[in-house]
This record gives sequence, structure tokens and C-alpha cells, in this order.
Amino acid sequence: MRTLVTGAAGFIGSNLCDYLLHQNCEVQGVDNFVTGQKEFLKEAHKNQKFSFQELDLFDFEKTKKIIASYRPEVVVHLASNADVRFGLKHPRKDVEQGTLVTYNVLESSRLAGVKKFAFSSTGSVYGEPEVFPTPENCPFPIQTSLYAASKVAAEGLIQAYSEGYGIKGYIFRFVSILGERYTHGHVFDFAQKLLRNSKKIEILGDGKQQKAYLYVGDCMGAIWRILSSQDEKMNIFNLGPDEYINVDQSLDIICRTMAVSPERVYTGGKRGWIGDSPFIFLDCKKLKSIGWKPKKNIAESVEITLKYILENKWILEKRGVE
Amino acid sequence: MRTLVTGAAGFIGSNLCDYLLHQNCEVQGVDNFVTGQKEFLKEAHKNQKFSFQELDLFDFEKTKKIIASYRPEVVVHLASNADVRFGLKHPRKDVEQGTLVTYNVLESSRLAGVKKFAFSSTGSVYGEPEVFPTPENCPFPIQTSLYAASKVAAEGLIQAYSEGYGIKGYIFRFVSILGERYTHGHVFDFAQKLLRNSKKIEILGDGKQQKAYLYVGDCMGAIWRILSSQDEKMNIFNLGPDEYINVDQSLDIICRTMAVSPERVYTGGKRGWIGDSPFIFLDCKKLKSIGWKPKKNIAESVEITLKYILENKWILEKRGVE
Repeated sequence: MRTLVTGAAGFIGSNLCDYLLHQNCEVQGVDNFVTGQKEFLKEAHKNQKFSFQELDLFDFEKTKKIIASYRPEVVVHLASNADVRFGLKHPRKDVEQGTLVTYNVLESSRLAGVKKFAFSSTGSVYGEPEVFPTPENCPFPIQTSLYAASKVAAEGLIQAYSEGYGIKGYIFRFVSILGERYTHGHVFDFAQKLLRNSKKIEILGDGKQQKAYLYVGDCMGAIWRILSSQDEKMNIFNLGPDEYINVDQSLDIICRTMAVSPERVYTGGKRGWIGDSPFIFLDCKKLKSIGWKPKKNIAESVEITLKYILENKWILEKRGVE
Repeated sequence: MRTLVTGAAGFIGSNLCDYLLHQNCEVQGVDNFVTGQKEFLKEAHKNQKFSFQELDLFDFEKTKKIIASYRPEVVVHLASNADVRFGLKHPRKDVEQGTLVTYNVLESSRLAGVKKFAFSSTGSVYGEPEVFPTPENCPFPIQTSLYAASKVAAEGLIQAYSEGYGIKGYIFRFVSILGERYTHGHVFDFAQKLLRNSKKIEILGDGKQQKAYLYVGDCMGAIWRILSSQDEKMNIFNLGPDEYINVDQSLDIICRTMAVSPERVYTGGKRGWIGDSPFIFLDCKKLKSIGWKPKKNIAESVEITLKYILENKWILEKRGVE
């Protein structure tokens, strides 16, 4: 499976490159290093089956050229504005980095004869659903964030390309992913805050937001299983665990691991920020029905992530542009 | 209700300008005249409450300036690539004219302090649904055309703006609209073909595609009722009749009105073109529950449309760019 991965130097992208190389695939990674880290590709670069191109996917002509010259069978498009919380500060960013960039990669893939196009979407496309756990075919949702709106836009494009041009589409609706090379999100934020001040910590919202988290290794296993076994026109899968945890409980694990007990100060409200979904819990029956199950639970995932951050403190200085 | 209408010189746009002026609103129309017709605004221009700006909405700076200087309370964004069938020939067109232009108008509206943002979406966002008639909250659909994908993308943007910035959103999911100033679609195509050759006619698909059509006057009544009575954060409504008709039956009406009986040649297949939905029938209970009902049935709408085309044959020469 000759695969091109966009966002290859990112958290999920670099883990995917390593995983695919272990499966003996040829892999080309592309990344613009805006949030991606060269460090994350060190392992991949040791493998002869890996190649890399620095590329800004907003540049359509260059994207077209690079995909055409690599001629992958599969494109896994992970590159994205990962900054869910700050969409309202710069609304054009999600439109450009989410929707337009996906168009550029998708159209380039079509022109290069790519057979399968896979995309990292999000459980946030369900907005604030009424059904929990939320299945892939829940009622037509209403978007609550620019980030998710750009993911829905990209999903629609991929679906139309699948119908119109016969490219098979793979859409992964992720919960938040945790694990090695994690570079943003609540574990990151809490660790950063506690390293600065272990006596007191600010929590966005009321701490009762319930979220599901998946370990990146389990995520890789799911992607691989879907890509290598599913062959419908469109293959849409939720990816998540069969449990959830609230923000306070997650902070309990973090504090225990760091051996601190800070005073907790809540900013209040059901949501951590505008567009934050107070409850994310996806129904992953479809994914399980094809033989996948997660190996790590949420508590273990939080611990692994935290340990990784504490052993790689340079990451705390490398946040993407907000 | 001081209203700015984009696509004001189009079929639906020009009817809406006239309707709003009759309701004593102040109206500014904008259009780039790519598919819009100056002729359609003749009535509106007689009214002192009407003003007009020629504008390409792809130009963000100019769009921002014009909306800021008019300072509407309500923006009704109808401008769009109306060419549903030819999306696959130029995939970038729907992304630019659908998604990006909507972003430009929406962001300009936010910056200008607009309170209500209304948008013409389509029943095609339901793809090929499994539920008929199809309600607004049917299962999360899969897109089948670039046209509908661009509408879904725009819907998501409007929803995220509504949540994030407090602009009230109005989304109208139309069936196909018929009536005076109709400039494209099956009645247009059939009339054009029969005027060229009344002995023989080619029909895209098997003639059994079932579609719902709504008279433009009824559509205006629905838009007005929704805008003037609904005040939720997001107001999403299907707009259609409570009946449907197949392509052959519609052609029967057209042939009877034109007094011709051509031989029918079918291109075959359930769909007229890739991405054509073989059955569109929307559940409009929600719209009816706020006191609306259509005054014309589908047969009358087809007849009115055909008569309008035959009395305004210049329109047959004015198709938009494909």
C-alpha cells in the first residue's frame, strides 16, 4: 500500500508513518512544519521505504506536482488546523486550512489517479447530539465550531468525489487522541500549568465536561484495519473507546501521576469555550464489528501521555500558532 | 426589515426583492450578472426603497465594504453556482462560488453587525436518503454532488457563526423552484429541446426520477413567514410541496401545454446525471406548523413556468456558463 500522508510530522501523522512502515508500506510524508515537528520523523527517516517532502498544501500547484510524482495508491489527509479552541479569533483559518486545503489534496489525488482517500474528521461534527453514544448515522447535526464546520465541509467534498469520480472515501471521526507525541489538548494544558504552578490550577468550564479519549496506538490499529479491510464507496467510522471521563477525573489522574494537589479554580459554565461540546461519546459498534478493540483504557492513555510530556518538556515550548 | 439580498438578479433573488419591497422593506440587491439578468430587476428599480450594487462576492474586501456601508439587519445569501449538473466538470467552482463566497458574505455580515443571516440551501443535502418524505433531522447524510457538498459546507459555517458570534441563522432547504424568471432546470431544458425539435426528445435517465417542485410565489411566502416569525439561534426549514411527480409526468404536462407529442428517447439509468438524486421529497411539517401552505400544485407550477418561458424566449439564449 503505497501511501502519502499529509500532516506527517504531526502527532497522529508521525505515528501513522511509523505504523505503516512497520506494516511494510512505502510511505511519503508531507508537512509544512507549522505545528509538525521534525523530531517526530526521526524514526521514519531511518527506514528506506520512507520519503519526505516539505510542502504547504495551500499551494495547489505544488501539491498537485508532488502527489502526481509520488503516485500513491492511498492518500491519508491528516493536515489541518488543529487548534479547535481559537477558531473564533481567526475564522478564515479553518476555511483555508480545513476546507480549501482538503480540496487541494483531494483534487490533486484525483488527478494523480489515487484509489483511496482517507481523512481525519472529528466526533465534533455531531455538534451537541441528543443521542449517546452517538452513532455515525445519528440525526443530521448542527455545527457548533468552525473547526468541526470545516471537517463537515471536507467530508462532503470527499463524499461527492467518491460518488462523482469513483475514489473510495475513508472518513475517521475521532474522539480526542492521546499518547506519545501529543502536542495539544487538555493533558498538555494541565501539565504546562502544573509545571508552572503546582499549588493552583485554572480549569476551563465547570470540570464536568465528559469526553472520550483514545490511545494513539489503538487509533493506528483502527485506521489500519479500516483501510486494509473496508472497500465500500464511502467508509465512515467513529473511532473511540467505550468509556468516557470528565475533566475533573482526568485532572485527578494527572495530579496523582505528578504527585501534586493544586487548588482547583473553575472558569465556570458547562463548556470550556464557545463551541466546546460538553459531552462527547461515540458509538463505535461499526468499528468493533470489523474486529477492532482498544488495548488501553482512558486512565492508562492519560498516564502515558503525561509521562511522555514530562520526559519531553521541549514540546511544551512548541505550541502551534494560536 | 432592512435587507441585503445576494444573487438579487437571479430567479429566486429577483422574486425575493420584489416580494420584500411589497412588504415595505428597504432592500439592497447585489449581483455579478454571471447568471443574473438585469431585466429581472426592472420592477424593483421602480421602487425608491430599492438600491443595487454590482458586486463579485469572491472579492472579500469589496463585499465587506458594501455590506458595511449598507448596514442591513438581515442578509439573504442566495448567490451561488446554480449549475448542479456540471459540478464534476469544474470541481473548484462549487468550492469557490459555494463555500468561499458564503464565508465572504457571512464574515462581512458579522463585521457589519448583521442580526440575521439567511441562506438558500437545497434538499440535495440529504443525498440519497432512506426516509421519505425526508425531515430536517433525518440521519446524517452522505453527499452525492459537489453542489450539495458546497451547500452543506455553507450550512456548517452559518451554524458555527450562529453559535460563536450570536448571528441568527436561517437555512432554507429548497426542492427545485419553478415560476416566473426560471432560467434553468428540467422545464427549461425540455422547452428548449421541443422548440428545436418537437418530434423527438432526449430524456436524461429513465424518466422515472421523482422530484418535488415548489412555485416561486409559495417559496417567497415561506421565506417571509420564517424570517418574520422565527427567532431561534438556528432556524432550519425544508421548503417544498406535499406531493411529487416523475420526469415523464412532468413532460406530459409540458407536451400538452405546447401541443406536441414527441418520441421519447431515454439515456437510461435511475439518475439523470452523476449525483442526481432519483427521489426528492421533503417533509415540510415544520414549515406547515408555523402556518404556511403552498397555493399552487406542481402541475400548475410547471404550466406557469412553461408559459413564462414561451413568452420570454430571450431567456433560452441566456444560460449561465457551464
